[in-house]
Amino acid sequence: MPIDVITSDKIKLTIEEAGALGRQALERIGLSQEDAGTVTDHLVDNMMCGYDFAGLPRILAIAESPELQKPRRPVSVVHETPISAVVDGGNNVGYISLVKAVDIAIEKAKASGISVVGVNNSWFSGRNAYYLEKISRAGFVGFHTASGPGLVVPIGATRPALGTNPLSFAFPGKPDPLIFDMGTAMTMWGEVLLMALLNQEFPEGVGVDKDGKPTTSAREIAKGGVLPFAGHKGYGLSVMVQAFGVLAGAKARAGEVLDSGFFFIALSPDLLMPSAEFHRQLAEMTSKIKSLPRQPGVSEIRIPSERSFREREIHREEGVLLDRAVHERLLAL
Amino acid sequence: MPIDVITSDKIKLTIEEAGALGRQALERIGLSQEDAGTVTDHLVDNMMCGYDFAGLPRILAIAESPELQKPRRPVSVVHETPISAVVDGGNNVGYISLVKAVDIAIEKAKASGISVVGVNNSWFSGRNAYYLEKISRAGFVGFHTASGPGLVVPIGATRPALGTNPLSFAFPGKPDPLIFDMGTAMTMWGEVLLMALLNQEFPEGVGVDKDGKPTTSAREIAKGGVLPFAGHKGYGLSVMVQAFGVLAGAKARAGEVLDSGFFFIALSPDLLMPSAEFHRQLAEMTSKIKSLPRQPGVSEIRIPSERSFREREIHREEGVLLDRAVHERLLAL
Repeated sequence: MPIDVITSDKIKLTIEEAGALGRQALERIGLSQEDAGTVTDHLVDNMMCGYDFAGLPRILAIAESPELQKPRRPVSVVHETPISAVVDGGNNVGYISLVKAVDIAIEKAKASGISVVGVNNSWFSGRNAYYLEKISRAGFVGFHTASGPGLVVPIGATRPALGTNPLSFAFPGKPDPLIFDMGTAMTMWGEVLLMALLNQEFPEGVGVDKDGKPTTSAREIAKGGVLPFAGHKGYGLSVMVQAFGVLAGAKARAGEVLDSGFFFIALSPDLLMPSAEFHRQLAEMTSKIKSLPRQPGVSEIRIPSERSFREREIHREEGVLLDRAVHERLLAL
Repeated sequence: MPIDVITSDKIKLTIEEAGALGRQALERIGLSQEDAGTVTDHLVDNMMCGYDFAGLPRILAIAESPELQKPRRPVSVVHETPISAVVDGGNNVGYISLVKAVDIAIEKAKASGISVVGVNNSWFSGRNAYYLEKISRAGFVGFHTASGPGLVVPIGATRPALGTNPLSFAFPGKPDPLIFDMGTAMTMWGEVLLMALLNQEFPEGVGVDKDGKPTTSAREIAKGGVLPFAGHKGYGLSVMVQAFGVLAGAKARAGEVLDSGFFFIALSPDLLMPSAEFHRQLAEMTSKIKSLPRQPGVSEIRIPSERSFREREIHREEGVLLDRAVHERLLAL
């Protein structure tokens, strides 16, 4: 049974139960206790923040990944300066290596005011905002990109070359940081695979078939590729994210520059103004945006990341929902 | 006569003639010889690169700007660390202050591998790629944002609060850097003003009237506001650019956080890999994208910035075209 088939048959788990389930499943597929905890923290947080698709069901995708069958080495720093590091992910899943990279980025930014960290030899990094939240809650402005191998078709081409290539920004603030995280493709690749399994159709303009011809069939798009979002703007951003991936050492994984590379910048607002003053002015900015007159029927003008922080507090109390079939498959790993 | 009315009546100028015309006009409206040269270099380069709208006609907009009537001070550094600077633009037009900021960013990045520079108290900065080309040709990866006062309407609001807020990235490479520069609004504000003067219509979804109601009338949009491009993604990016503007000190100009702030990061590829190796791998990346199989009728897969570099070489030989009415008005300043 495909991992992501949506049924209305869901079970409710407390956050503790969801965590225990995730850790057990990940240890069963070979992760150390520590690594299983790191990955589970991320996946359960995604569910709490309202991204069920990026939650515990991902463990099934990790379990099925051919990368998991290849040898893994501990995550290590292979190049370093006082303000930068290149992290070899050791073929570990990105959820593990990027948390270590974020720790390095924060430590160096604390010492020097700024840091630049690249991660390569990893795959699957989850939700970018998860990493940038750590950087921004530590008091730093964050920038993060995640490139991948070819799923997205450049404008004018018939075959994919770019990843879905998300980029994200975060600013420290009180009480919460301001974080924005977006993909540069028309849709997530996981969505294509899920819709292909269900033999569903996308709207026009989302993807092309294996010959580069426009199609709405998810099955054909899975054999072809997705288009960049918003035409030339999305394409341009995607190329930029891919270039940051090259700088992070994407070629180290398999000798191919068009591959996964994860890039971080962390910088202190103090480089330009006292952090406390920046927090005040950022709050002033979001407050002015939120207090604009609203369109009829709009109850609130939203700021990026606001909704997920609220959802997290609700789900912390109420727990999260998991598809029963996914639950059974996780228990059976 | 409105400055931007398009007629078919154009005159051809050599690059030298265009430069002399621009410098003379800017000196007549009160700029020093040096500053007039700095601004003209930018405007003529925009025309050479194929952005006629962002070329010498801008001098008429500068001449008409109320900011030009207010006192100016020399551009100065008001806060500094070895890796950062805050530049007070002194109410000079951004074309002047941002070139000085770029020089500082390059100097600090040469010494420390990285730099962060914010510019405030300035207005109108032109084409972002112009500044990032200087940074990337000096060997650095560049990131640049330019926020402005409210022209763009946040999703769910009826009134504008955000600037058209472009963001841009650049990577050093051989023979040319890779640069991408985009606005985060559905259209440029200059385009709205021009279309309003001509009483023309936009497609649906570009803007709203003064009550926040959708309209296609450029005149109504000029009284209302433009929408972010691509819905929530454009809105989110626009908020991020505005936050970088706050960090650059936007509030310094008029006590309002939602104002013009210009932000730069310059960093050496050497922080992560030897620059020469990065140049090779970046060329490998663009070459792989460009050599993909093409859609029927597509003669070439384009990489961001490629077209403007080519146009520059053509116009360097052939000169540039200027609307005759604009030419006359520039001579009459």
